[in-house]
Amino acid sequence: VFSDEAVLAAMLRFEAALARAQARLGMIPQSGADAVAAVTRVDPACLADEARRSATLVIPFLQRIPPEAREFAHRGATSQDVLDTALVLLLRHARQILTADHIRLVRELRALSERHAATVMLARTLLQPAMPTTFGYKVASWHGGVQRSWRRLSAAFHEAVQLQFGGAAGTLAAYGDRGPELAREVAKELQLPAPPPPWHSQRDRLAALVAQCGVYTGSLAKIARDITLLMQPEIHEISEPGGESSTMPHKRNPAGSVVTLAAASRLPGLVASFLSAMPQELERGAGGWQSEWPTVADTIQAAGSALASIADTIGGLTVHTIRMRANLEAAGEAGQGGPGAAETFRRQLLEDSE
Amino acid sequence: VFSDEAVLAAMLRFEAALARAQARLGMIPQSGADAVAAVTRVDPACLADEARRSATLVIPFLQRIPPEAREFAHRGATSQDVLDTALVLLLRHARQILTADHIRLVRELRALSERHAATVMLARTLLQPAMPTTFGYKVASWHGGVQRSWRRLSAAFHEAVQLQFGGAAGTLAAYGDRGPELAREVAKELQLPAPPPPWHSQRDRLAALVAQCGVYTGSLAKIARDITLLMQPEIHEISEPGGESSTMPHKRNPAGSVVTLAAASRLPGLVASFLSAMPQELERGAGGWQSEWPTVADTIQAAGSALASIADTIGGLTVHTIRMRANLEAAGEAGQGGPGAAETFRRQLLEDSE
Amino acid sequence: VFSDEAVLAAMLRFEAALARAQARLGMIPQSGADAVAAVTRVDPACLADEARRSATLVIPFLQRIPPEAREFAHRGATSQDVLDTALVLLLRHARQILTADHIRLVRELRALSERHAATVMLARTLLQPAMPTTFGYKVASWHGGVQRSWRRLSAAFHEAVQLQFGGAAGTLAAYGDRGPELAREVAKELQLPAPPPPWHSQRDRLAALVAQCGVYTGSLAKIARDITLLMQPEIHEISEPGGESSTMPHKRNPAGSVVTLAAASRLPGLVASFLSAMPQELERGAGGWQSEWPTVADTIQAAGSALASIADTIGGLTVHTIRMRANLEAAGEAGQGGPGAAETFRRQLLEDSE
Amino acid sequence: VFSDEAVLAAMLRFEAALARAQARLGMIPQSGADAVAAVTRVDPACLADEARRSATLVIPFLQRIPPEAREFAHRGATSQDVLDTALVLLLRHARQILTADHIRLVRELRALSERHAATVMLARTLLQPAMPTTFGYKVASWHGGVQRSWRRLSAAFHEAVQLQFGGAAGTLAAYGDRGPELAREVAKELQLPAPPPPWHSQRDRLAALVAQCGVYTGSLAKIARDITLLMQPEIHEISEPGGESSTMPHKRNPAGSVVTLAAASRLPGLVASFLSAMPQELERGAGGWQSEWPTVADTIQAAGSALASIADTIGGLTVHTIRMRANLEAAGEAGQGGPGAAETFRRQLLEDSE
Repeated sequence: VFSDEAVLAAMLRFEAALARAQARLGMIPQSGADAVAAVTRVDPACLADEARRSATLVIPFLQRIPPEAREFAHRGATSQDVLDTALVLLLRHARQILTADHIRLVRELRALSERHAATVMLARTLLQPAMPTTFGYKVASWHGGVQRSWRRLSAAFHEAVQLQFGGAAGTLAAYGDRGPELAREVAKELQLPAPPPPWHSQRDRLAALVAQCGVYTGSLAKIARDITLLMQPEIHEISEPGGESSTMPHKRNPAGSVVTLAAASRLPGLVASFLSAMPQELERGAGGWQSEWPTVADTIQAAGSALASIADTIGGLTVHTIRMRANLEAAGEAGQGGPGAAETFRRQLLEDSE
Repeated sequence: VFSDEAVLAAMLRFEAALARAQARLGMIPQSGADAVAAVTRVDPACLADEARRSATLVIPFLQRIPPEAREFAHRGATSQDVLDTALVLLLRHARQILTADHIRLVRELRALSERHAATVMLARTLLQPAMPTTFGYKVASWHGGVQRSWRRLSAAFHEAVQLQFGGAAGTLAAYGDRGPELAREVAKELQLPAPPPPWHSQRDRLAALVAQCGVYTGSLAKIARDITLLMQPEIHEISEPGGESSTMPHKRNPAGSVVTLAAASRLPGLVASFLSAMPQELERGAGGWQSEWPTVADTIQAAGSALASIADTIGGLTVHTIRMRANLEAAGEAGQGGPGAAETFRRQLLEDSE
Repeated sequence: VFSDEAVLAAMLRFEAALARAQARLGMIPQSGADAVAAVTRVDPACLADEARRSATLVIPFLQRIPPEAREFAHRGATSQDVLDTALVLLLRHARQILTADHIRLVRELRALSERHAATVMLARTLLQPAMPTTFGYKVASWHGGVQRSWRRLSAAFHEAVQLQFGGAAGTLAAYGDRGPELAREVAKELQLPAPPPPWHSQRDRLAALVAQCGVYTGSLAKIARDITLLMQPEIHEISEPGGESSTMPHKRNPAGSVVTLAAASRLPGLVASFLSAMPQELERGAGGWQSEWPTVADTIQAAGSALASIADTIGGLTVHTIRMRANLEAAGEAGQGGPGAAETFRRQLLEDSE
Repeated sequence: VFSDEAVLAAMLRFEAALARAQARLGMIPQSGADAVAAVTRVDPACLADEARRSATLVIPFLQRIPPEAREFAHRGATSQDVLDTALVLLLRHARQILTADHIRLVRELRALSERHAATVMLARTLLQPAMPTTFGYKVASWHGGVQRSWRRLSAAFHEAVQLQFGGAAGTLAAYGDRGPELAREVAKELQLPAPPPPWHSQRDRLAALVAQCGVYTGSLAKIARDITLLMQPEIHEISEPGGESSTMPHKRNPAGSVVTLAAASRLPGLVASFLSAMPQELERGAGGWQSEWPTVADTIQAAGSALASIADTIGGLTVHTIRMRANLEAAGEAGQGGPGAAETFRRQLLEDSE
């Protein structure tokens, strides 16, 4: 999603939308807009090196646009307008990918919970046997955490996917009194909602998005942690698909859960990085803003990897109900009694999050 | 808010509510509930040391309750029920304090923005002069960031302030089939909403709350950063009240902004701590859960300190409009032209967040 | 270690040392130094509130010193001189406490490793059975991690425990050309090494100390993680002392390990907080510096708590060698063969870290 | 440094070294070792996808080795042996690159400090004028921070660049009693020091390395922060080379400092990620270990980028001594007096860190 090609393509989409909107409002000739829109690719070679020299990708990016288009491109915009909007377009795309995997995960969790509504097993607290519960309730709890976190993440995406368009000082001064009108047209071109005022140094929407990725991924990691524990041969209540070892043919590793845990463990640090860059200087930060791209890209990549892997894992999970029963019996006092309100709570968790 | 006394009092409130609810449902005699409700204080001496030995505050806490009450207290509950609910009660209280300061801050920001709707000044990007803007628009941008972040934080409080009540395994098994009914009664006693299923190892609601504290405080720190920069004598466009130096009588430090920045800079790490504790083991975590209290307490304390200080600061801010004008003129090309759509955006920011 | 009283006492020690050194060099009369040294306590009431107003504790602190002493106190020093030096004095004290617990832990680990040099058990990778190893080797690996980390932490303490003394601008200008000479005398008074140049906004020594606390505590948490896993009843190869449950009398929780894991999980966030405050502005930071105290205090407190708890736990550990053997046999192919070079490595680990 | 090709090449170097060492000790025929050593490239296509399925790169990696070599490759080793050793080889290479840039930076800093030993300027604390200092002393303070941090980082590299070789359970059991002997031979082949016992789940050496990268980069960011502040046109005491704006031809941005600040701001979160993965389960972690690669790669990449950029920046810095003098005069009382012991401290800082 955040490959060099994708970034440059998204930047070109912004420039094309801006030029077309300007043409529609009579600010530049239609032929100028066409010239800009005709640029479909920018050569990424050496771009990174040149970008470092001016601390922005935008200058070498514009220099790679053919002169006849360059003349009508980027007029009145600032580098942050194109970069933030490109980021937002990539986030919109990322959201679609995450959504598909999330729906798959949730479907699997619901089915698994229903299937094991009555599968009694041992609840464990502080890794010690506590009392009976059901596997269906456990899965519904996973589902609850994931689904609530998704709702928050979804709202955060909704709020963050917005046009950035403010010009050099966030005032759109280059367009006289027609700035806000032009902004609306650009947003329409990009199928973005009516734009808010520029947010060059107000990063709360993105910060909330990154933070909710962190919470969501934490909820995924909770599932993975449980699987690695229940898959210990000494417990052996569930098994993952796959997971061969390079040395020991007899071994079966919790490969999917491990990928999820590994990816998820990167999130807290990424969230901290984004949050600590929030106090950006005046109308555009000197360092904080420029640090955001890799953090956002890593966040989405790690969250997506954690999600895809746990969805696969849940889809292929084997549940050893006989062993669950045996462990319960072996637990003595801790395994006695019934699962209380497990079924009530299980249903409530699945309903709440429909 | 999170003093030892406050924690113990909140724990007692849970135990009293549980006993009263049980009496109402005929599970214990009314006199038993009265005995529990009559306990108004628990001796905090040596509690911490004893708590370390069992990794939970609850065992020494219960031992300090007089025997006649202890017999009817905590029946069928688990240590996490009382601790999580106590935490939630303290968070409800913290929310009130934060709300009062937030309202004060927002009122000051709105008034300041209105007052300076037409005060032209220099916008600065990457700490370099860019183009003219207005101080009113700048303040409205601060206001926008703070107000949006508050809305998210508010929603997170709403979602997180919930009863925790699940018993040893999250099934309320000790109450037969009356667990959910009892849970509703306990919630009512504590004026909490109808309770969700137990969330012993599903910490997403608290995680989202801590994360939104991080985003909110980031928005406060943004204001403070700008003030420290604009208050540099070489720029001198605004001044904070107070801020004497211990060595140099001629000096006036940005004391309020510094307190805000210092408090706010603790948040990203705290959020990371909370998020990395999310993958808690099975029905109750071994380490992750137990790490949450100090993190939440520090989060609220730091956010509250950052908020109170910036509210005071904004309330006492002096704006040097003549100097703003002079800096604009001194900026040469960067200071020329008008503030474009600054007023449109300013109004939009104040309206959006009403 | 970091109580209000301890902080104020350490601040007074700095002021007394400064006054005595000045008297020795003839800068103030001996009676003035005696007056300063005679102040043994400062009233902490309301200090925090007043400190917030000026963003420094030092102004209200000095106001609480009796006038006859105040006249000769803090002459030519800056608030950061007294606060940083007070911090350093508290860190020196903290180091002693940590050292005692570390020595105890290491002694227990070595004895445990020797005792179980030949106790064969199952190695587990990705929580799956791998091949035989020895418990003595496992403990020696714990020991190796802890001991190496301690050496680094110890070096970091050594480097960080230094006088801070620079005056308002880090030039000791108030003392003419006698600043460095006075600095040496102050250091001697406080039994600190010959002082480096002022480090008001160069925080690398403290940053390295906090970071090494993080690594050290990570090595402690590794032990605790292993104990919680090996103490699962389904594995039951070791048991902690203590750990009662508030609900289930049959249950024995890994209480000590949980305290260690909980405390340790705060460290990564604290280290991040400290590191992100490093780029402090010019000759004294506006926010970054002021954020350090709570971070350092929490770091030391959490590290100390993790250490004390794991030392107690190791000291009371029960090893179930019969169960180890039984688990090995039950592991089939994974449990076959011998422990290879386990004993060679075990000895090497204990020797390396003597 | 951490490209796919580089990783696979480093993995092949491990396998070749292992095979050669085994041939030397008569464990496999020399022709087998030659076959392994003859493999110079592995096809990276689809490798990542396959790696995800088994949570390790090693299985698909080995499958891509031609059968005649595969038969003699990886014998008795475990996937973590090859991956950790490959990481270490890449770190050794990274160290060389960082060293060259560090030496360049230090040389520039020393020359700049010498050149401006007597250039008097205003010291600023909390972004307010304090008293006179010299630019040479300020640069020497930067130099001190960077040089001390480098020494620690250098020691951390030295300690971390070690062979990993333990086999499935860290006992090298596959080689009978010749494991340690073989390990020494493998280390020699790779020009690594005599190997320590396996460190599969003891990550303190790498943790210390990542943490010291964080401290070092913090010291670089301190320089960059100062430059952005002193380059404000209202202060204008120094100027960076380069830094054009995409909109405003009159503008000159602190481009190099911004790149350094942006890269550096990623470090605290990365360090937190690494530290929080330290408590790895038993003989090999399920998630923690697997999370390390991207964290280490990002750490080195960000540190290297911050370093290269600040070295370039310092090399091209323009110092406006006349403006420094003017600002001093404009500062009134704060600008009066001399720079005290600035020159003494400056020399001490340069000498200490030779």
